[in-house]
Amino acid sequence: MAAGRTSGRTGRRPGESGTRDAILEAARREFSQRGYDRATIRGVAGGAGVDPALVHYFFGTKTELFAAAMQLPVNPAEVVQALLAGGPELIGEHLVGTFLSVWDHADNRDVFFGLIRSAVTDEHAATLLREFAVRELFGQVAAALGTPDAELRASLVFSQIFGLAVARYILRVEPLASTPAQVVAAAVGPTVQRYITGDLDPGARQRP
Amino acid sequence: MAAGRTSGRTGRRPGESGTRDAILEAARREFSQRGYDRATIRGVAGGAGVDPALVHYFFGTKTELFAAAMQLPVNPAEVVQALLAGGPELIGEHLVGTFLSVWDHADNRDVFFGLIRSAVTDEHAATLLREFAVRELFGQVAAALGTPDAELRASLVFSQIFGLAVARYILRVEPLASTPAQVVAAAVGPTVQRYITGDLDPGARQRP
Repeated sequence: MAAGRTSGRTGRRPGESGTRDAILEAARREFSQRGYDRATIRGVAGGAGVDPALVHYFFGTKTELFAAAMQLPVNPAEVVQALLAGGPELIGEHLVGTFLSVWDHADNRDVFFGLIRSAVTDEHAATLLREFAVRELFGQVAAALGTPDAELRASLVFSQIFGLAVARYILRVEPLASTPAQVVAAAVGPTVQRYITGDLDPGARQRP
Repeated sequence: MAAGRTSGRTGRRPGESGTRDAILEAARREFSQRGYDRATIRGVAGGAGVDPALVHYFFGTKTELFAAAMQLPVNPAEVVQALLAGGPELIGEHLVGTFLSVWDHADNRDVFFGLIRSAVTDEHAATLLREFAVRELFGQVAAALGTPDAELRASLVFSQIFGLAVARYILRVEPLASTPAQVVAAAVGPTVQRYITGDLDPGARQRP
């Protein structure tokens, strides 16, 4: 499906789309069998029977290849850059809004939501999702902002974004599932914002 | 396992523990087949081959029966009361702390975490978890506090607690998985607090 869309848009030669598909298939196998950290471009190339240089040529970095293989509709590195360019004050709301605007279109979530489902029941998929989401996505946001406790902050962001995705799209908890994306982003954004840049123990003074 | 612990502690007559087990088994079947809302004490009694009055006698309300069948270590109604008695200011932190103190002990999470896993892959289990968590647990907290948008607030709380449970216990995202419970409760509590009693659009003034 993804390959059909891609070749339709760019008018590539027929053989190229088959090669791209073979690489994406091999990438999904490599990532799911070895996890994100241990997967290599070389391993993907071997699985697809092509030269590693061709994998780089078509898909760029390992992060970008993962995003393509999992049908993440955006390049994580670009998301991080765009978020940081917007200034740190509304980064939480932008982050939540970006995910919702992508996931609200059902076409964009089949493979990635399959990964979420697998991650909850299968250890390999759990490792894959954990490594990718924390390190490549939320971890980069926290690290780029230079906040202390970047890893704890990244994992807290993950807990909220993951819970939101499952509640809205998989469990379809109402009224959250049918509330407009910008209302949800406005409500959940400040949570992500505080996890990234704010006080992680604001209740210290009130506690007995 | 639950029955063994229970009968060991209270020294009930042998036949009674068998009856309780049969009721809990029937309850798990009834809830998973019919969902939380459509499940009835009468249906459970029929499944276990006992009188409905006996189900009430052993387990109380439908909510309490569900909590027992799912090995929820606490009675949801009591949690709600305890939280409200503590005053609204730290309710978020208390709520998160209560869940963590229970789930940090692995014995307490087998059946309930099984339900979480099923909910992500199976529509019946999804309905069950959704109906119970939103209405009986978080919804009651919001309703008792008398806040507007109680249902949206409840579903936002659900998204964070659910995501936290999966990240900490199922995916074991580090360092979140090994951070002491009170540190996590201090960090996540204010999120739940704002979802229950706070401003759901605090960024309105900063937005262009």
